[in-house]
Amino acid sequence: MGASPRRVGLLTAGGDCPGLNAVIRALTKSLIFDHGIEVIGIMDGFKGLVENAARELTMDDVSGILTLGGTILGTTNRENPFKYPVSKGREIVFKDRSRDVLETVERLRLDMLITIGGDGTQAISNQLVQKGLRVIGVPKTIDNDLHGTDLTFGHDTAVAVAAEAIDRIHTTAMSHHRVMVVETMGRYSGWIALRAGIAAGGDILLLPEIPYHMDAICREVHQRSEKGRRSSIVVVAEGAKPKGGEVTARRTVADASDPLRLGGVGERVALEIEKTTNVEARATILGHIQRGGTPTPFDRILATRYGVEAAVIAARGESGKMVALHGDEIVSVPLESVACGPRLVPESSTLIKTARSIGSSFGDK
Amino acid sequence: MGASPRRVGLLTAGGDCPGLNAVIRALTKSLIFDHGIEVIGIMDGFKGLVENAARELTMDDVSGILTLGGTILGTTNRENPFKYPVSKGREIVFKDRSRDVLETVERLRLDMLITIGGDGTQAISNQLVQKGLRVIGVPKTIDNDLHGTDLTFGHDTAVAVAAEAIDRIHTTAMSHHRVMVVETMGRYSGWIALRAGIAAGGDILLLPEIPYHMDAICREVHQRSEKGRRSSIVVVAEGAKPKGGEVTARRTVADASDPLRLGGVGERVALEIEKTTNVEARATILGHIQRGGTPTPFDRILATRYGVEAAVIAARGESGKMVALHGDEIVSVPLESVACGPRLVPESSTLIKTARSIGSSFGDK
Amino acid sequence: MGASPRRVGLLTAGGDCPGLNAVIRALTKSLIFDHGIEVIGIMDGFKGLVENAARELTMDDVSGILTLGGTILGTTNRENPFKYPVSKGREIVFKDRSRDVLETVERLRLDMLITIGGDGTQAISNQLVQKGLRVIGVPKTIDNDLHGTDLTFGHDTAVAVAAEAIDRIHTTAMSHHRVMVVETMGRYSGWIALRAGIAAGGDILLLPEIPYHMDAICREVHQRSEKGRRSSIVVVAEGAKPKGGEVTARRTVADASDPLRLGGVGERVALEIEKTTNVEARATILGHIQRGGTPTPFDRILATRYGVEAAVIAARGESGKMVALHGDEIVSVPLESVACGPRLVPESSTLIKTARSIGSSFGDK
Amino acid sequence: MGASPRRVGLLTAGGDCPGLNAVIRALTKSLIFDHGIEVIGIMDGFKGLVENAARELTMDDVSGILTLGGTILGTTNRENPFKYPVSKGREIVFKDRSRDVLETVERLRLDMLITIGGDGTQAISNQLVQKGLRVIGVPKTIDNDLHGTDLTFGHDTAVAVAAEAIDRIHTTAMSHHRVMVVETMGRYSGWIALRAGIAAGGDILLLPEIPYHMDAICREVHQRSEKGRRSSIVVVAEGAKPKGGEVTARRTVADASDPLRLGGVGERVALEIEKTTNVEARATILGHIQRGGTPTPFDRILATRYGVEAAVIAARGESGKMVALHGDEIVSVPLESVACGPRLVPESSTLIKTARSIGSSFGDK
Repeated sequence: MGASPRRVGLLTAGGDCPGLNAVIRALTKSLIFDHGIEVIGIMDGFKGLVENAARELTMDDVSGILTLGGTILGTTNRENPFKYPVSKGREIVFKDRSRDVLETVERLRLDMLITIGGDGTQAISNQLVQKGLRVIGVPKTIDNDLHGTDLTFGHDTAVAVAAEAIDRIHTTAMSHHRVMVVETMGRYSGWIALRAGIAAGGDILLLPEIPYHMDAICREVHQRSEKGRRSSIVVVAEGAKPKGGEVTARRTVADASDPLRLGGVGERVALEIEKTTNVEARATILGHIQRGGTPTPFDRILATRYGVEAAVIAARGESGKMVALHGDEIVSVPLESVACGPRLVPESSTLIKTARSIGSSFGDK
Repeated sequence: MGASPRRVGLLTAGGDCPGLNAVIRALTKSLIFDHGIEVIGIMDGFKGLVENAARELTMDDVSGILTLGGTILGTTNRENPFKYPVSKGREIVFKDRSRDVLETVERLRLDMLITIGGDGTQAISNQLVQKGLRVIGVPKTIDNDLHGTDLTFGHDTAVAVAAEAIDRIHTTAMSHHRVMVVETMGRYSGWIALRAGIAAGGDILLLPEIPYHMDAICREVHQRSEKGRRSSIVVVAEGAKPKGGEVTARRTVADASDPLRLGGVGERVALEIEKTTNVEARATILGHIQRGGTPTPFDRILATRYGVEAAVIAARGESGKMVALHGDEIVSVPLESVACGPRLVPESSTLIKTARSIGSSFGDK
Repeated sequence: MGASPRRVGLLTAGGDCPGLNAVIRALTKSLIFDHGIEVIGIMDGFKGLVENAARELTMDDVSGILTLGGTILGTTNRENPFKYPVSKGREIVFKDRSRDVLETVERLRLDMLITIGGDGTQAISNQLVQKGLRVIGVPKTIDNDLHGTDLTFGHDTAVAVAAEAIDRIHTTAMSHHRVMVVETMGRYSGWIALRAGIAAGGDILLLPEIPYHMDAICREVHQRSEKGRRSSIVVVAEGAKPKGGEVTARRTVADASDPLRLGGVGERVALEIEKTTNVEARATILGHIQRGGTPTPFDRILATRYGVEAAVIAARGESGKMVALHGDEIVSVPLESVACGPRLVPESSTLIKTARSIGSSFGDK
Repeated sequence: MGASPRRVGLLTAGGDCPGLNAVIRALTKSLIFDHGIEVIGIMDGFKGLVENAARELTMDDVSGILTLGGTILGTTNRENPFKYPVSKGREIVFKDRSRDVLETVERLRLDMLITIGGDGTQAISNQLVQKGLRVIGVPKTIDNDLHGTDLTFGHDTAVAVAAEAIDRIHTTAMSHHRVMVVETMGRYSGWIALRAGIAAGGDILLLPEIPYHMDAICREVHQRSEKGRRSSIVVVAEGAKPKGGEVTARRTVADASDPLRLGGVGERVALEIEKTTNVEARATILGHIQRGGTPTPFDRILATRYGVEAAVIAARGESGKMVALHGDEIVSVPLESVACGPRLVPESSTLIKTARSIGSSFGDK
């Protein structure tokens, strides 16, 4: 444990996530007010560290931002200082620019960095610790698939947005006697699909962790129809895949040789259900509405608690730690324990058992 | 004008639309309480008329349904009694079953029908009037593209859902320095995209009524980027099409020879922007969340006013009319004036001028 | 009609109202972008004009404020330049400081003022026109009780907030077998209570325009209870009063000789219902949640239309006018026709008839 | 531990709470589908047990109720079978009618009761266990002040409703340069005020657990004003009280000798702030909007988990237990450990520390 820092740099990196500003506000207020530490906001994620873009944050700067989506620190850039994109003629090559980070830190006279981000960000944070910087991480991802913490801020909002969208789709499914397939975010893990599915009464939940059989899904739809259910709701995470199959990734420009090959797993599942069962099926892709906007009050509280606790351990002079929620307590865990791939929904999850007990199925049998 | 009816049949037909139950409630309360007329609910749209499925509606049946999405009358079936689908071996053929409608009406001793639906429904209503039935129509479509009325119930809810989704997408667009393309409903008309675009600050609005040039869109995106705008929001109606081009319809099973050719105009526009401008672009397809769920208070009031006025003209013994909003008054118009294709956004619309005045463009120049 | 102005001052005055920032944004964008006119924001209502507090507004200043509640122009001060409060020793006296307004206008080189406010504001605007200034008004009040326009922005949001609060109260009323009295805003007019009452299914609606009999209310509650209704919802505007009685004003400090005499009409009505009918009754006072926060998409569109049209007539060099909604069109009306007291709900209102037709009563018989 | 029951009775008692129907749905689905146990719904809380009012619950009965506020089991009656109100002439006397409960249980052939309710309900459940019945409890209270569990369902919704109301009030406070006092529910404990205060950025939080000094509050308001803060938000639980003082209870009919003495702590605090600091202060009493309506997705998940786990331990033949949340696990605790008065916010609560760290104060110093 080192001396208490006098000046701390703050950055947000990775995808957008409701609650970023709530963390920034709590950190800034708490660092200044409680600990007498100056706060410098780094602009545009690690890019600002490489290219030296920053500004001081005062109490006034963070007043009134608690409910705002996005980040007041420019963008949540995904750039990695260790593999930094540099234009070389018409091409882009990647260079290690961690030296520039160290220089910026020195120029700004920062005694410590606090990085708000997901597993990619925390892996970089850990590398920066190896380079001699003092870094504290704050866990952020709407997907909730980060190791070391029970819950990340932003997840409750994503679940709420997805669940409330499914609420609306329910009545249409019933009014039209249809199967509605709703695709949520979750490339590697099914936390959003699972929680939103339970919260909104999904009948079939497809998660990346449980490969599905189209047969099982269609049989289930058919049985529901026989029993007189006027509709079925299928909630599918974008990373769900058939048993033995591959993830049907939504295209990116890079691979878009055929500009019309655009569908993902949502459309795929809807199409196959319709072909097999003869019940009309439609897909809704919730997409980015799960990622932005005002955080739920739950997430604002969690984000605020993370911010306050990160300030506490920063002031204590710790480094190489990430704040985390264990049960109902905010604790800290080593950064290196976090960066080990996505945290999946375990087979034994009580959420999965809960869903099965109320009659939801997972397309696996 | 005929005698006041003693027993009236009510049906909901066409796509799901927020406010159906609010109309059913207002009609039932008003017919029973104000006019002493019995109310019979026909199940599943015109299907219930063909196949004789109905039940009486009492004050108790409509208590507490004001905020519920969907319809308490089963489904909003799209079946047309004049072209009714009949299984013949493995095929489906279409027969005129309007005689069965007349029989059901007689068997149920209905003096009049009140049909809640869009242009398809009102065209059928008009045909039934030709067959000798007394029918009153109530205008319903989330798209607002019905002739004869300034506004249909359900539209305000669809606009609100779309606008609030765009609100969430805004912060992500800014946090990621991206173009976000948001596809709204509106196959033939751009009312939803136009209103939601103005309400949520869309930068480029693409409507079926104004064919777009990809060049103009990309130039606009580029110029915004040059001016330092961190993002652009493109709101596109599902029926928007390029100048001289075709609507990029989302697939249905019928035409899905290649199961991966699934994208619509939203994905198409995003892809082309990204290729041309080199700014990352993502598409969000709002889909059916615009069609279901709890109506806005505005729509509940409008639906209630429609229901009450339909009861008034029904009690007066009128027929062949649809209730309609003109300015701030509920009036009635001839059914035959309604069924003449979708009502488009006129070129001279003040909404279009409004959008242009605050700097939104339509991709047309 | 005069020459087109080159520099325009903008101010917001009176009570807070959702949509203020949407008007400021539309005006600023439209004045600069469409008409090439400079825009100066006056701070804190007329106070900024008297005390010369202002700043230029640019496109950047109004970017991203569309959904924000409140006003970026400081406060919506209620100070009147013709009766301006001045401290004199320990007392406050009122002086005519309209000369200071004229001086500020000259010092800031403003060719015109655009004032966003309710009837008080528009009356002041009209007086300033008499003093030789060019002024355009934009109608603002959540109460919708302004003459000259069919609808003011902010009203739809107030109605929506009230209706959604009543939605929540409904289930509790039923679960507890209770009468729930919900007091809305509306000191002089009942537009909010009437619309929210229809939208949320209020059973008894009490408006300032229709003096109530406690007897009639209690009889109605009793009858509903006899018919097996598990609850009754009474929606009461804060300005409602008993037949022959007075408005039960909520206290202000001035009259608070007894600090416990705090209740308004909501508590009064609940208490009397409980005493007379023996059914438990509770009052909820919605208060200021109807006045602030994010405007509904409907209000954002209306506010934007008002802003754009005000810019048009300002650019045309008009003065002494207020923009207004007539039917579905934005027009302009003389300022002097506006300042003539609150616009009440007329006895013949179709909204009142609508409410009666679905069984709501007004406590008047 | 006894044999697995074959028939279980379900009841909801106490105040309304968002998520009741979600528990009923999960219990019913899970008992029938997972455990093959019949489910009988008891109407109107313990009243239905005394007076033998019940109906079978099937899968169909609980379909579509997940998002509905209130309870499908009539009312959440507060009647206590051990002190049951009986009319005797014009008076009401209280009798022990627990024998009737035993008879109803026998007549309905119930092997077990599952009671959804707060501390009052669980105390009765415990007494019924003493009388020889098998009973399982499910914890319910929006206040979250129940012993034995970390969290009750309904609390997250109450916090969210309160926080979103405060969000709206924020802009008005700023636009008007005012102190806004917002009174939340919480007669004995401050959980709602504390969480909503953190979530919505309350400046001063007054809880029943921390008696306040008016001096400290006014000093804080004054200091904020000096620092240029345009407003202050005071969040006060209805049970908050001054140091050495009493709770200012809102009136009930019983004590309403003076019908105008209606105010509670919210109005009291606002009045005193205004008198002392000369800053305008207004009170908003959120009241019953915190208690009803659609539960948040978070609460629907928690309610579902409680229901499923209660079914599990019921099927296992346990009795005298209440399901509870410990950390992230659903466990069960003895009923007798629950009924020991309200669970208060501990002085050492991390939530209190969190609030203090971001500059909120508690009016205690």
